[in-house]
Amino acid sequence: MSDLIMAISKGEMVFPRSEYLRRLEAVKSELRNSNIETLVVFSPSNITYLTGYTALSAYVPQALIISLDSDEPTFMLRRMDSGAAIHQTYLQREKIIGYPENLVGSREVDGYDAIIEELFKTGCTNKSIGLELVRLSSASERKFLTKLSSTTVVDCSDLVNWIRLVKSDLEITLMREAAAISDAAILRAYEVIRPGVREADVAAEVAATLARGANGKPGTNLQPMFLCSSPRTGTSHIPWSEDVLRPGSQVNLEVGGVRHGYVSALMRTYSIGQPSDRLKQMNEAEIEAMGAALEVARPGNTCGDIAEAVTKTLAKYGLSKESRCGYPIGIDWMEPTASLKLGDSTILQPNMTFHLMLGNWVDEEFGYALSETFRVTDSAPEVLTQTPRQLFII
Amino acid sequence: MSDLIMAISKGEMVFPRSEYLRRLEAVKSELRNSNIETLVVFSPSNITYLTGYTALSAYVPQALIISLDSDEPTFMLRRMDSGAAIHQTYLQREKIIGYPENLVGSREVDGYDAIIEELFKTGCTNKSIGLELVRLSSASERKFLTKLSSTTVVDCSDLVNWIRLVKSDLEITLMREAAAISDAAILRAYEVIRPGVREADVAAEVAATLARGANGKPGTNLQPMFLCSSPRTGTSHIPWSEDVLRPGSQVNLEVGGVRHGYVSALMRTYSIGQPSDRLKQMNEAEIEAMGAALEVARPGNTCGDIAEAVTKTLAKYGLSKESRCGYPIGIDWMEPTASLKLGDSTILQPNMTFHLMLGNWVDEEFGYALSETFRVTDSAPEVLTQTPRQLFII
Repeated sequence: MSDLIMAISKGEMVFPRSEYLRRLEAVKSELRNSNIETLVVFSPSNITYLTGYTALSAYVPQALIISLDSDEPTFMLRRMDSGAAIHQTYLQREKIIGYPENLVGSREVDGYDAIIEELFKTGCTNKSIGLELVRLSSASERKFLTKLSSTTVVDCSDLVNWIRLVKSDLEITLMREAAAISDAAILRAYEVIRPGVREADVAAEVAATLARGANGKPGTNLQPMFLCSSPRTGTSHIPWSEDVLRPGSQVNLEVGGVRHGYVSALMRTYSIGQPSDRLKQMNEAEIEAMGAALEVARPGNTCGDIAEAVTKTLAKYGLSKESRCGYPIGIDWMEPTASLKLGDSTILQPNMTFHLMLGNWVDEEFGYALSETFRVTDSAPEVLTQTPRQLFII
Repeated sequence: MSDLIMAISKGEMVFPRSEYLRRLEAVKSELRNSNIETLVVFSPSNITYLTGYTALSAYVPQALIISLDSDEPTFMLRRMDSGAAIHQTYLQREKIIGYPENLVGSREVDGYDAIIEELFKTGCTNKSIGLELVRLSSASERKFLTKLSSTTVVDCSDLVNWIRLVKSDLEITLMREAAAISDAAILRAYEVIRPGVREADVAAEVAATLARGANGKPGTNLQPMFLCSSPRTGTSHIPWSEDVLRPGSQVNLEVGGVRHGYVSALMRTYSIGQPSDRLKQMNEAEIEAMGAALEVARPGNTCGDIAEAVTKTLAKYGLSKESRCGYPIGIDWMEPTASLKLGDSTILQPNMTFHLMLGNWVDEEFGYALSETFRVTDSAPEVLTQTPRQLFII
């Protein structure tokens, strides 16, 4: 970056350097166990985890290169985004390499060519290399495997993901702040859901609340929100519509507050006017199921035990839930490791965090939303989201 | 879906059935030219283009299957999202197949297994099949190629993308509506950017405006926005911060209003107090470059000609721009085909739409944002975004 005149300053770090080095050492320890000398990380969430970088640049190639013999990783990304990396991360500026802009928007070459060249230049290709292959398109994987044909390449798609599953206390602090933002958004919706208001107007107020944040801590980004009303409550991921809410409308809402990449998610259901018997019964069953699930969410039990508690409770009411009951949550919302589904044998440990998701789309025209984000502790779980666990009646 | 009790109603279609059939026929025509009988579309944007579906479900496998001998495509997606597909798309409900939820969150199987099974069941595997391979991870590509080892498989990653490049008048109407929303958001920022206000508070007002929309047409989703202030104006994709704006702060803002998937993007720069000489000169040069670029944005010229006009104009001021000058824009923002960069030989045709992007990050600590979304016409381009082309001084 020597040809640039004014150097960008380092921003305030989200975590102390020691926290990033602790995470890096956990990764290196796994690499040593697997006899891998270099890990190339593509997942934007894993790059956030290991550096603090949260800019939205992963639509072009970028990679964090971790070598056992380097104190700090090297972050290679598009030149246009290298300033953001210097500003946001704990990395020394010489560890951030911006590749030229002519590698963007070309059909012949891309940033992966520069990343592979760097692996050769630094001698990483003489030893074994782990790649997050699941993050590569097949064409990009071919590029790596062809150019690295003399190197031992190991698929390390989930190596960092599993390390992320158990949070540090510093991460939990951000998850609590994110949960407070989700709480504020769900309560703001309770204030603005009224007959005559468009779904889009509710979405506007919820989005503004998610950005303004709570307790003086602003949201630092917006995750997608899911807001739908009758006759779409049987859908789970539809965007809001232009429709106007009416007496008798039911509204399902899912939000995720964000603090420096960390998300805590929350779902609630609203009814304009008295709910139908069907909605009341569903609500009673799901709230009991939520309690039963949290009761078994203790260290030593498994993810499958949580799903089983939900299934058993719903069965008492003649209900079932086809989709799983949730997933680990942290950076960028859903983590791709454990799963709150029947049979998942992942053992719960303190400081794992989950989105326990009892959204239930039982019929094409009828569904229900209820969830909490919680943390496993030494005993009973800490529910990070603190919105009253109820059907909101307007 | 026969075991569901209440059928979800069809929503109001964004486009008439004839428009979707026209697009489908354009795809089929390309398939016939290439002797391909079946196309499997994975790209969420291409699925939106061909069906009207905009729900956010592509984080698990889904596919639109187009066969030459079928009047309508078949849409396979997660069971939980099939109601949204029935509601949003023109497809008959028997053309929408929800695969079971036990294929989600499993490490052994996923929705692609169900999609491949459907290809066998319907006899598609007896003839040649086109796949959007670039959308598959390498593991998923292996799954397809292994199971389809007796079938001729052709990579059709960009087939639909190139068809999308030229819009219909109906699509242009939505792009105009989206542009009006971007205009409203940029002007709202001009009202709220003040000393003492946090970046996050500006983001909140901008997000709310993007959802409320303009001229009675709400935004139908939120795209990421990019808002940064000094000392981060040299960055392009960083999320907003907790910082408080001060006299002398410069703010760069990029937004994209959304109408039913269609995006028109817009960038402007703001200065609290009188701009520095450097910012004033940059602004003068970039506004002249924008004019020069639009002057040559006429049918018969190339994408490269637009970039050349920018380059030549900036050179008069002793400036250069390392990154490309923009890209085609439409569903879900950036389209992956032509490119507004030097040497791109794509010939401009009426109803192509571009985000002409003169954001210029010239120094780690200093950058500038200016853009327009425009449509190629028979003569001079129609600039869809109508915000005054100026540096906004507060």
